[in-house]
Amino acid sequence: MSVSAFEHPFLSGLVGDDEAGQLFSVKAEIDAMLAFETGLARAEASCGIIPAEAGERIAAALQTFEPDMAGLRNGTARDGVVVAELVKQLRDAVNQQAGGGEAAKHVHFGATSQDVIDTALMIRLKQACSLFIERLAALEKVFDDIDKAFGNRRLMGHTRMQAAIPITVSDRIRAWKEPLTRHHQRLDRFSEAGFAVQFGGAAGCLEKLGDKAADVRKALAWELFLTDAPQWQSQRDRLAEFAGILALISGSLGKLGQDVALLALMGGEMELAGGGGSSAMAHKQNPVAAEVLVSLARFNAVQLSGMQQSMVHEQERSGAAWTLEWLILPPMVMATGAALRLATELAANVRSLGKG
Amino acid sequence: MSVSAFEHPFLSGLVGDDEAGQLFSVKAEIDAMLAFETGLARAEASCGIIPAEAGERIAAALQTFEPDMAGLRNGTARDGVVVAELVKQLRDAVNQQAGGGEAAKHVHFGATSQDVIDTALMIRLKQACSLFIERLAALEKVFDDIDKAFGNRRLMGHTRMQAAIPITVSDRIRAWKEPLTRHHQRLDRFSEAGFAVQFGGAAGCLEKLGDKAADVRKALAWELFLTDAPQWQSQRDRLAEFAGILALISGSLGKLGQDVALLALMGGEMELAGGGGSSAMAHKQNPVAAEVLVSLARFNAVQLSGMQQSMVHEQERSGAAWTLEWLILPPMVMATGAALRLATELAANVRSLGKG
Amino acid sequence: MSVSAFEHPFLSGLVGDDEAGQLFSVKAEIDAMLAFETGLARAEASCGIIPAEAGERIAAALQTFEPDMAGLRNGTARDGVVVAELVKQLRDAVNQQAGGGEAAKHVHFGATSQDVIDTALMIRLKQACSLFIERLAALEKVFDDIDKAFGNRRLMGHTRMQAAIPITVSDRIRAWKEPLTRHHQRLDRFSEAGFAVQFGGAAGCLEKLGDKAADVRKALAWELFLTDAPQWQSQRDRLAEFAGILALISGSLGKLGQDVALLALMGGEMELAGGGGSSAMAHKQNPVAAEVLVSLARFNAVQLSGMQQSMVHEQERSGAAWTLEWLILPPMVMATGAALRLATELAANVRSLGKG
Amino acid sequence: MSVSAFEHPFLSGLVGDDEAGQLFSVKAEIDAMLAFETGLARAEASCGIIPAEAGERIAAALQTFEPDMAGLRNGTARDGVVVAELVKQLRDAVNQQAGGGEAAKHVHFGATSQDVIDTALMIRLKQACSLFIERLAALEKVFDDIDKAFGNRRLMGHTRMQAAIPITVSDRIRAWKEPLTRHHQRLDRFSEAGFAVQFGGAAGCLEKLGDKAADVRKALAWELFLTDAPQWQSQRDRLAEFAGILALISGSLGKLGQDVALLALMGGEMELAGGGGSSAMAHKQNPVAAEVLVSLARFNAVQLSGMQQSMVHEQERSGAAWTLEWLILPPMVMATGAALRLATELAANVRSLGKG
Repeated sequence: MSVSAFEHPFLSGLVGDDEAGQLFSVKAEIDAMLAFETGLARAEASCGIIPAEAGERIAAALQTFEPDMAGLRNGTARDGVVVAELVKQLRDAVNQQAGGGEAAKHVHFGATSQDVIDTALMIRLKQACSLFIERLAALEKVFDDIDKAFGNRRLMGHTRMQAAIPITVSDRIRAWKEPLTRHHQRLDRFSEAGFAVQFGGAAGCLEKLGDKAADVRKALAWELFLTDAPQWQSQRDRLAEFAGILALISGSLGKLGQDVALLALMGGEMELAGGGGSSAMAHKQNPVAAEVLVSLARFNAVQLSGMQQSMVHEQERSGAAWTLEWLILPPMVMATGAALRLATELAANVRSLGKG
Repeated sequence: MSVSAFEHPFLSGLVGDDEAGQLFSVKAEIDAMLAFETGLARAEASCGIIPAEAGERIAAALQTFEPDMAGLRNGTARDGVVVAELVKQLRDAVNQQAGGGEAAKHVHFGATSQDVIDTALMIRLKQACSLFIERLAALEKVFDDIDKAFGNRRLMGHTRMQAAIPITVSDRIRAWKEPLTRHHQRLDRFSEAGFAVQFGGAAGCLEKLGDKAADVRKALAWELFLTDAPQWQSQRDRLAEFAGILALISGSLGKLGQDVALLALMGGEMELAGGGGSSAMAHKQNPVAAEVLVSLARFNAVQLSGMQQSMVHEQERSGAAWTLEWLILPPMVMATGAALRLATELAANVRSLGKG
Repeated sequence: MSVSAFEHPFLSGLVGDDEAGQLFSVKAEIDAMLAFETGLARAEASCGIIPAEAGERIAAALQTFEPDMAGLRNGTARDGVVVAELVKQLRDAVNQQAGGGEAAKHVHFGATSQDVIDTALMIRLKQACSLFIERLAALEKVFDDIDKAFGNRRLMGHTRMQAAIPITVSDRIRAWKEPLTRHHQRLDRFSEAGFAVQFGGAAGCLEKLGDKAADVRKALAWELFLTDAPQWQSQRDRLAEFAGILALISGSLGKLGQDVALLALMGGEMELAGGGGSSAMAHKQNPVAAEVLVSLARFNAVQLSGMQQSMVHEQERSGAAWTLEWLILPPMVMATGAALRLATELAANVRSLGKG
Repeated sequence: MSVSAFEHPFLSGLVGDDEAGQLFSVKAEIDAMLAFETGLARAEASCGIIPAEAGERIAAALQTFEPDMAGLRNGTARDGVVVAELVKQLRDAVNQQAGGGEAAKHVHFGATSQDVIDTALMIRLKQACSLFIERLAALEKVFDDIDKAFGNRRLMGHTRMQAAIPITVSDRIRAWKEPLTRHHQRLDRFSEAGFAVQFGGAAGCLEKLGDKAADVRKALAWELFLTDAPQWQSQRDRLAEFAGILALISGSLGKLGQDVALLALMGGEMELAGGGGSSAMAHKQNPVAAEVLVSLARFNAVQLSGMQQSMVHEQERSGAAWTLEWLILPPMVMATGAALRLATELAANVRSLGKG
């Protein structure tokens, strides 16, 4: 199927992003869930909740685990979430090891589906965050280069779609770059405590871990390089906030795209390498990347509304609000990744800006 | 990659839909584009725009055409749309036939990228519409069956999340079914003229076809079982209207899902077969399908905003607004298909409703 | 207060609309609710549900009724809806008439809050629909005039924000006008059955009217010039559909605005009377109306998502979903009215289009 | 008119907020604009840009200035923004003072419309921020009180709309309160640098102030208690970020409302004072405030999408994107204020929670 343009056989050439896409491959997703279950076994072993040997056996078995994907699909269809079936497969895998029978019972001990899914998501969002921080820095650098090369030149300033007074190329570049610097800081700040482990058990109380609950959670967070925090299974503000930063990033890049498309339309102030051909008119050079930046900005703007809707999370866990996140957040990450990729390509294609 | 839950290896068990997904496979997409180019060659041959023999050769060559997908991906990355590269590949294919050299030049004659993409979309949306009409009819039938079985029983009516006065099961079923009947009518009505061929050439004027432009377009529409209409390349109201009907369908099914989830929560008035398991609590039967109907309703509600944004289509063709549609509309079709599938399963799982 | 730009002391000069605003004045709202209660009394009297004399007394008393607005505000704060308090005030008014004591009991008989609010809304939406049909017709006429004056001139066609090939002014005007003609038809079609009376009583069953329920509802619809239809209190598809048409209208006008702003930006192909001044640059003529059309299109595109969200209406009546409509729909009507007003002014300001 | 429920004569009883509304009164708006012009005159006088006497005269005249509102409305209709007309009225006012002729020329020197409007907005958003921080603190306190009173009691935990296992009342209260504490921190953090003065002149370069531009801006920021920052007229990320925090706040309160509505529906675990009456059923106590919290959460979720759309700001100043903000942001502030007010009332109405 090719429903999503982000992973479509040919549209992904335009709006795809290999690196961001990697983080949302099913392999990365299952790996992150295995990391949770492995980390949990280790944490629980270290806190004496499960036997040390069980912890080791689980960690060993999960390292070579190969999921039965058809089984996972059926399980998800049945249960609304993949975890019950995955845990069953994991237990079978542990069980098949010599002497694994005892250890198998300890897989996923005290945890619930949401612990696995939400923590596995946080692991990958943290990676996406690092990737985007790198790309923002690279893009800021490209703008610095353009500024060095052409900053002193003049550009006609436009307000309300009308020529106003001349500005410098530096002025325009500042309007493109300064928000990126702030987004960079927003991601840095969010990283301080935003990527939090989710661990609460059946209804959030970790009732099976008694007075070691907080220790286990802390050890689990440490295993996974995540922030330790009380369970947040019905508190989706961190995810919505992160999605908001994604939309801010693509929003600012949409402004860049719009400006470049308008420069291309007006002519005379910009030379751009690349640009797309037309099936009907050989003479045209379309500012494709610029246009797509606008599309991606508007896409994320729309999607953010869905992440906000999913904050209305009933009781201890809402299936409806949670599933909505699954439909919305991965495409937002992809759109942000693609926007950063395209913006960097576009900026690197600037051959000339402003007038001498 | 597994960005989109609709085609995700295991999440698609929950929110996927094989039949709707089929219409958005890359195969279906390319087949629809080939249908356009074949239909165009035939229409232009019948109107004397291209030689009859060229029409036949093109039709023959396209029947066995196998795309070079990597080439299409690169072309899309470069041009912002797949068509220039596809047409090149098609011309090569025609060319490789004995004596195809002359015919190759006539491929895509007078057409532009948007003619191909938009018409190929309309072909598939028309199929989706037929599929959804069938499913709505089937679902209305299931509601009739439930009504026959339990319609006279009592159900506690609730207003503002509070018990009000008793109603009958029939009363509640009417609230679920009547909107579906209207949606059915909306799709019927839309079908009368909504699935319109798009054919305008470089800037909408079919300037290469002279006084035969209207005849060619009419013949092309006829070949493709679409409505003949003047080019609408910058007039996206039909697509937005169709997306609106999709959101209405999933919206009404979301109301059904919410009601069923509340019945499950309250207990005592409904028996439901199926229902999902929990990885933490073996005793639970979660109303998974009901919850997902709510998710899909809210998803489409969010997306519709994006289709409306894409109506602000600059000049003769907006790359930005057009690309936004590509990101938004296929997932909306999938969400609607999945909602209809899940609602029918859910309704068929009703074992008892109301009190005797 | 001046929260809403649509009724803001000075911003309403820009985005307001006196005629549409009239329909959403509190006076019009209360008048429509009184029309419901009067119509109900007449309908129930004519069907023998209440004494004929009571019907007359109620009708008479309501004609001169003056609401206690502070009371209505407090009642709404307390009950979440104005009707309980309004009905109390109406009964007092009837009671104060000579011999009204008996009649007072019959006010609002068998009805519930939602019957009053939803029907009063439909009365005003029907008026808005008529207003917009008139304005669409007037705007189509202005485009015809521009076409007559300048249709044969040339305009540079642009695709993907790049000059493509020349088109005629007629070509461009068709892209602006044809969607309006379809919107006109959409409103006409919707009017056939979309403006439906809402009458269901406490939980939708009209349980107090026995076997005369359908007759009363029919008579009530007739009194109010609305379509007779079974209660739809939890079926919000008609409202969402109507909101969708509003967004289609403003969307197409946003495309017009974007095109005009781009023509103004490029210069040379359009002369426009009017246009706004700048506080910093006396030489500028800003295409204000064109820009605002884009704003209003995007505004309605955003809002439509909220109307769709409110389709997920729990059980027999959802306070949450219903209140959401109250926040969203009136501003959508205003935005549509303002867009039609501005588009007509803008089109009438076209002094020249295209090149000779 | 009564388009906006937030300032509607009776609906404002339900969704209004007097304190937040105060900040968006036209008086507060004009006062903030006058504060800008006064602060600018002082800043420019202190930097030697305008004569010290002119600064004093302007400050004096503006203190007693009374706007001609009809003139402002007409000016806005004409120019798309109120400032050109307001500055004209201000100059007239200064001029009418004895010896003001010279000073009048110095009003608004070097500034543009957007400087006035955006800075005046920031002044009021900063006040809204303070108000919301206070209210969040008060609400956190109410939750602490409920926790002290009932925290140890049991509550049935629900996941996926099904009874799961018992939790404590404290567990549930944590899920309500912890996000509020984070929102509180988000507002605190935003306050550090987010409320930035906007001052750029015609196209952002403060070209009339020469090498004193930065000094004037700094002095202006200091006058207005705002953060000094380079002009951000086409960089709308701060506003979108602030709107995002508003939506996070109302989103978390929507979760509270949904939970309370479900508790009211299920019965037996909560006693609530207050609650609304029904026009049809005297026995009902509707959880009105709880429902409205859900409405306001979904409202802001929808609106945020519009603030994000307005980030695609063309060139040095986009009339279209800017006007869209005017339509969207004030209602978001109101919805947030109303949600905080209602949540506090609702929480204060909790008479009992959980089972002993």
